Amino acid sequence: MADLRPPEHQVAGHRASVDNLGPLVDDAGLFYKPLQAGDRGEHELAFYIAFSAHPAVPPRIRDAFFPRFHGTRRIPTAARPGELYPHIVLEDLLAGIAAPCVADIKIGACTWSPLAPEPYVAKCLAKDLETTSALLGFRVSGVRVAGQGGAVWRPERSELKGIDTAGVRGVLRRYVSSCGGDGPDCALAAAVYGGDWGVLAQLRELKAWFEEQTLFHFYSASILLGYDANAVSAPGGGVRVKLVDFAHVDEGEGVIDHNFLGGLCSLIKFIADIVAEASEMASSGH
Amino acid sequence: MADLRPPEHQVAGHRASVDNLGPLVDDAGLFYKPLQAGDRGEHELAFYIAFSAHPAVPPRIRDAFFPRFHGTRRIPTAARPGELYPHIVLEDLLAGIAAPCVADIKIGACTWSPLAPEPYVAKCLAKDLETTSALLGFRVSGVRVAGQGGAVWRPERSELKGIDTAGVRGVLRRYVSSCGGDGPDCALAAAVYGGDWGVLAQLRELKAWFEEQTLFHFYSASILLGYDANAVSAPGGGVRVKLVDFAHVDEGEGVIDHNFLGGLCSLIKFIADIVAEASEMASSGH
Repeated sequence: MADLRPPEHQVAGHRASVDNLGPLVDDAGLFYKPLQAGDRGEHELAFYIAFSAHPAVPPRIRDAFFPRFHGTRRIPTAARPGELYPHIVLEDLLAGIAAPCVADIKIGACTWSPLAPEPYVAKCLAKDLETTSALLGFRVSGVRVAGQGGAVWRPERSELKGIDTAGVRGVLRRYVSSCGGDGPDCALAAAVYGGDWGVLAQLRELKAWFEEQTLFHFYSASILLGYDANAVSAPGGGVRVKLVDFAHVDEGEGVIDHNFLGGLCSLIKFIADIVAEASEMASSGH
Repeated sequence: MADLRPPEHQVAGHRASVDNLGPLVDDAGLFYKPLQAGDRGEHELAFYIAFSAHPAVPPRIRDAFFPRFHGTRRIPTAARPGELYPHIVLEDLLAGIAAPCVADIKIGACTWSPLAPEPYVAKCLAKDLETTSALLGFRVSGVRVAGQGGAVWRPERSELKGIDTAGVRGVLRRYVSSCGGDGPDCALAAAVYGGDWGVLAQLRELKAWFEEQTLFHFYSASILLGYDANAVSAPGGGVRVKLVDFAHVDEGEGVIDHNFLGGLCSLIKFIADIVAEASEMASSGH
């Protein structure tokens, strides 16, 4: 376990330290997520167990859009010395990416289940109204953009919390811009968002599943976007679209996840607008 | 104005009487909606004025899915004797239907705008959680089914308020069943919900618009379904899908109406499931 370390490119949640439990990664491409406190950790683990074996989940959806589940493991942590703390073991979604550009986007106007207890609902609702969740159907929880020459843009969480619609548009533009220029140039919009297996194509495939699937309701889950700034023009480009954070997943009981689906459609529209703008700018020679 | 009368087939809202203002219809196919109290009436009127002239609304969407707007008129009412009360004048969506079958379905998990004042949000949220709105993304506000021989099924509003997911499925089945049998037979599911211009095809066209349109957010609006029980097998069948009730519409400001869209997708799934079941039952000879 000597190679366990906090992921360099983590953009949301606590960072593992002597003060906090946090995710760890190893050289074998595994991601260790400490079991969350209360019943959240057990709830997330139960989701992974149910989801990874569910006969009604298309293998293509599971493989393309979810981290592979490798069970649980008890490992030593800096935050709990002298103890082996239980972790959910997952595929490290950003393994092998040299210059990771990552965005964590929490999907859904409501981050709380209608079945959740009242004080929890009130707390989440207040946050949904303060952030862009209620208005846009999603909020950007974290972002990291690595540019040429090692420059990294990684706004503070407090900075992201205060942004409005225009701010979200700005972040989604900057996510596909070369670092260090005067404002976002969207130079990578076509390569990362567009194309046959870019973000937009992947989000649309995910949307088609959400129009049909009535197995799970993904409250407070995120879509993680990732690409490699050093390999974006390579075939495939390494563009990844994955769902993460399943501590608040409900059973669907025959009803689609209209909350996630609505937010996903809103995100698709934002990204499609950026691709269209970038394509117009390119064709007009700017 | 001698021919003004409350619509026979009204399923939601106050009925016009000496005690209450309510909608009226005339023989010319017009529907008179009294201006609602507070700023709701003015807000709804402002929506109709903006919407009916908006250059970015496709004429096909306006004509197919919205009541035609005919301005305002001040008319005498039983509730306000000696006064001419202002009404919004609209197309009577059910004019010319001999045996109207109507369902009023309020769309959206949230019936309140994130920009609405706090006490209003709390009141609406409580209702969204008590009814099926939060869980299903829509609730059935009213329904009327006219069967052969004059039989009519029209549950009380209080009865509809208490229904759960299975109850909603039951109402949507009964809406396309012949009256008076032992439970819903879904005999009209293919004719009303299915087909080239049935409810499902119309809802899907509406959905395609909602995936793109960023002009309006339709909080607390309803989809009104209507068909003529006496003419359901006629060409066209008179199946109608219309949006109504615009007292809480916000400007979209470049963002799609993910709340309405999510609820609409959920309704589509419910109805598609009923069409599929009915088709299986028909092909298995039951």
